[in-house]
Amino acid sequence: MDDRVREHAEVLVDWSARVEAGDQVVMDVAEGAHDLAVAVAAELGKRDATLLTTYGSSEVGRAFLRAGDDDREFAHSEPKLAMLEAADVYLRIGGGRNTTAMADVDGDRRQKARKATTATREARMDTDWVSTVHPTRSLAQQAGMAYEEYQDFVYDAVLRDWESLADEMANMKEVLDEGSEVRIETEHTDLTMSIEGRTAVNSAASVAYDSHNLPSGEVFTAPHATEGEVFFDVPMTIDATRVKNVSLTFEDGEVVDFAAEQGEDAIADVLDTDEGARRLGELGIGMNRGIDRFTDSILFDEKMGDTVHLALGRAYDACLPEGESGNDSAVHVDMITDVSEDSRMLVDGEVVQRNGTFRWEEGFESA
Amino acid sequence: MDDRVREHAEVLVDWSARVEAGDQVVMDVAEGAHDLAVAVAAELGKRDATLLTTYGSSEVGRAFLRAGDDDREFAHSEPKLAMLEAADVYLRIGGGRNTTAMADVDGDRRQKARKATTATREARMDTDWVSTVHPTRSLAQQAGMAYEEYQDFVYDAVLRDWESLADEMANMKEVLDEGSEVRIETEHTDLTMSIEGRTAVNSAASVAYDSHNLPSGEVFTAPHATEGEVFFDVPMTIDATRVKNVSLTFEDGEVVDFAAEQGEDAIADVLDTDEGARRLGELGIGMNRGIDRFTDSILFDEKMGDTVHLALGRAYDACLPEGESGNDSAVHVDMITDVSEDSRMLVDGEVVQRNGTFRWEEGFESA
Repeated sequence: MDDRVREHAEVLVDWSARVEAGDQVVMDVAEGAHDLAVAVAAELGKRDATLLTTYGSSEVGRAFLRAGDDDREFAHSEPKLAMLEAADVYLRIGGGRNTTAMADVDGDRRQKARKATTATREARMDTDWVSTVHPTRSLAQQAGMAYEEYQDFVYDAVLRDWESLADEMANMKEVLDEGSEVRIETEHTDLTMSIEGRTAVNSAASVAYDSHNLPSGEVFTAPHATEGEVFFDVPMTIDATRVKNVSLTFEDGEVVDFAAEQGEDAIADVLDTDEGARRLGELGIGMNRGIDRFTDSILFDEKMGDTVHLALGRAYDACLPEGESGNDSAVHVDMITDVSEDSRMLVDGEVVQRNGTFRWEEGFESA
Repeated sequence: MDDRVREHAEVLVDWSARVEAGDQVVMDVAEGAHDLAVAVAAELGKRDATLLTTYGSSEVGRAFLRAGDDDREFAHSEPKLAMLEAADVYLRIGGGRNTTAMADVDGDRRQKARKATTATREARMDTDWVSTVHPTRSLAQQAGMAYEEYQDFVYDAVLRDWESLADEMANMKEVLDEGSEVRIETEHTDLTMSIEGRTAVNSAASVAYDSHNLPSGEVFTAPHATEGEVFFDVPMTIDATRVKNVSLTFEDGEVVDFAAEQGEDAIADVLDTDEGARRLGELGIGMNRGIDRFTDSILFDEKMGDTVHLALGRAYDACLPEGESGNDSAVHVDMITDVSEDSRMLVDGEVVQRNGTFRWEEGFESA
């Protein structure tokens, strides 16, 4: 086994999920993620956790979703709900064999199924959950990279000094926590959001930081009262559909118009899921400069330095005042804008980032 | 997809598990059983069941078991227990990539882990559970067969007229239900067991018959007060160890002596698990003449016509009077004897089977 697989498992179990003796752990394993699952099982055994492994197979999911009539109703799985309610830690090991495995599942049906799983999704979010990914040939292909090249890319992003990145990101968190309004400007974007009363998350790839992705490296919050226009120039895949150059227009916090050069139907499906799907759940600022290119994987793309992303749908509780609930939805779909050129991010009228450079960094131009 | 995979899934869901709309189904998928899992998911979707899929990976299990110190304690998984308690149906889809994947896991440790999972095992047995197997290259190898040859072997055993086999087996069930003592004689065997008050199961590969294996084709009951000597001449694999020519000596229902030409340690490990592991939990009579050879897989071997098998350990509740519990153990290990030659089975002193031929069959010689 590649030593880096073992190190990935260690980072996941120790730094990210903070697994302790006696923890009840559920691990979900994608079709191509077997090797990392084996390494994680060994780490969990060493720490006297318990382990139940589920099979996150897109092909099993596709077969189940496609079966039956169009008027078929979906319900959540009670065993899955009970399982998640009894879990302390949930580890999702992504890494499939075909990123378009669900391409021929009807959008309406997917949406119905998604709505039916609200309870299990909430139970999962109540655990110390972490999502990571094992490098597979399918993901390498999606990234347009050779397999070994892609493995290097993933491990460079995952196996790093998380403590020191957390210190860097604390600057951005401070600005957002103290500010009330964020404005983002690029060539085709002029968007204003309120972040009044919201708390930013220093997403340092650990549940100890309310951060649930490995790798991570972003600071995010839960905006509201969004106004204006935003253009997402980073291509991505939503529900197995390729999406390019999306623009959204917001009025009173809601999407009132949208367009996409490619994959407009996928955006329409997302927006039609429920009311919350038309409002923003997240503003995120990518600060992981260890990630050096877009690979059509949201786990990596949204963390990349010199990018900003917004998500339609569900907001994370960690950004909200205790007991208050933010935007609610069955979806959470991130879209990304490159801010390395011709861009400004302002908080309460003051420029915090210009052309990718933050105010506390060398080379920042205040005007 | 091979049409037979789809047919296998249909038999499993309809005939074996009797899945109905709204059933909460958990499906456990071995490493090499992906294709059958996909076909089963489609059948479950058609029937409006729910589905949670777990990953029955021997390599994940091995890594988890081997980790940590020798004095490591094992505990059952609470999420797994909760999951099983909420399940109506549990489908176990076997078919790994290496039948000796657990070969280097210490016997003591395996035994400790097995004991720790009593609660989850009981919860599984309270569901409508069915075990089947997807033909893999690893199983073909264990059977000493080519892959296509092995696929034919499996589908010949699985895709058959179960209703008509159930009718044949009803004869044997009647004899056992009415009898009180079974005696088995072969060249090296002379064993007597009481079956007083016990009910035989007509194991026709369906939960409707208290039968939980697909394929099946055996009639079994729960013997007690075993006396004498038995010799198992069919080779098999127990906990990844090859076992050959086992003999057991019983006094007052308990094993007091044992030997094996090969794999004696594996037998010793089984017998040391707990008190119940030294007593019989099952007497089974193989009646599936569609299975024409031993393949070193208990699922098939014990069902083969002209064989008798006995299991050390746990008895099945279905054989016992309502509310009474039979032999209890963390293990259930079957061992098989060929009775095609030089053999007699007597119930209450009357010969029921001689040299493989039953009393109701042509060619039976009463003396």
